[in-house]
Amino acid sequence: MKVIADFCIVPIGVGVSLSPYVAGAVDAFENAGLECQTHSYGTNVSGEYDQVFAAFKDALKKIHEMGAPRITCTIKLGTRTDREQTMQDKIDSVAEKRKR
Amino acid sequence: MKVIADFCIVPIGVGVSLSPYVAGAVDAFENAGLECQTHSYGTNVSGEYDQVFAAFKDALKKIHEMGAPRITCTIKLGTRTDREQTMQDKIDSVAEKRKR
Amino acid sequence: MKVIADFCIVPIGVGVSLSPYVAGAVDAFENAGLECQTHSYGTNVSGEYDQVFAAFKDALKKIHEMGAPRITCTIKLGTRTDREQTMQDKIDSVAEKRKR
Amino acid sequence: MKVIADFCIVPIGVGVSLSPYVAGAVDAFENAGLECQTHSYGTNVSGEYDQVFAAFKDALKKIHEMGAPRITCTIKLGTRTDREQTMQDKIDSVAEKRKR
Repeated sequence: MKVIADFCIVPIGVGVSLSPYVAGAVDAFENAGLECQTHSYGTNVSGEYDQVFAAFKDALKKIHEMGAPRITCTIKLGTRTDREQTMQDKIDSVAEKRKR
Repeated sequence: MKVIADFCIVPIGVGVSLSPYVAGAVDAFENAGLECQTHSYGTNVSGEYDQVFAAFKDALKKIHEMGAPRITCTIKLGTRTDREQTMQDKIDSVAEKRKR
Repeated sequence: MKVIADFCIVPIGVGVSLSPYVAGAVDAFENAGLECQTHSYGTNVSGEYDQVFAAFKDALKKIHEMGAPRITCTIKLGTRTDREQTMQDKIDSVAEKRKR
Repeated sequence: MKVIADFCIVPIGVGVSLSPYVAGAVDAFENAGLECQTHSYGTNVSGEYDQVFAAFKDALKKIHEMGAPRITCTIKLGTRTDREQTMQDKIDSVAEKRKR
């Protein structure tokens, strides 16, 4: 099962600078060979369900190891059986409609 | 790794009545032996990471099998290493602070 | 425009105990006369769009005043023009489908 | 109050092709003079709280007028009082940490 997801990972109890932890999480997704794209409020990830959630587990472990006692995450996840779709397809599809 | 999560599962392309699909998803979580609590905008689930995401995968498969060609989900997920906490603890903790 | 929403408000830079801040936010919603229901990963709120987002702004201001230098929130929000629906209707609707 | 937000707007009851509605929403944000950046699972928007939520209300109205009887949205929203930060700052900050 192929998924396109958006992960926003927020370590709690480590002060206000979260980017070192987010960078660690993005590394975990990329090390798993997943397509990643970081934006201003999260990181989009595409791949097989099992691979994505194994990498996400690694990301959580890593952030706890980096010193965060608590983590909260917001994830958006999409699956479809009607057709294949890439992360870029979704962006292009909106951009095309806006041109009209 | 123990997690407390909030799953909001939205089948797309099946009209405006989503509750039969949501009911199917909640069944998948309960059949996996997970603690579940449905509220007005999702279902809270507590358990081991691997068990929760195996049940979530079952829920997605089931909803596709029920006829939904596309699904979008919003998940909130929390982990903590500093102490144990149940779903009810989180509700009680806010209620206590409000009494003061 | 009537909305049903789910607010999860996370103060950052105040340590790991977030419930006093969440309690302050729930107070802001209730003080605005909105229907509220706290669950394990947020608070469901129902009311008119303008009223809900005025109360949410009050909640954010209050949490900053309580000492949080940074806040991140996850909000789910639903509107519908086909029929009226309460927060309880949504829970009942899923429960009914599960009985069958 | 300045906010950085991520809006994911999902019309329900209009089939599986959502991009025309999402395009309409992005237009509403841009017409309000807000900085916008569309990614694979939403649109990041930056601006004053009141302006952002006025534009979001316009986006919802527009999507209902385009024929959607029901809409569900997921919004992430951040505010901070400790320092100014742009949408690009957040991306740069993670990228810098990853280089090390």
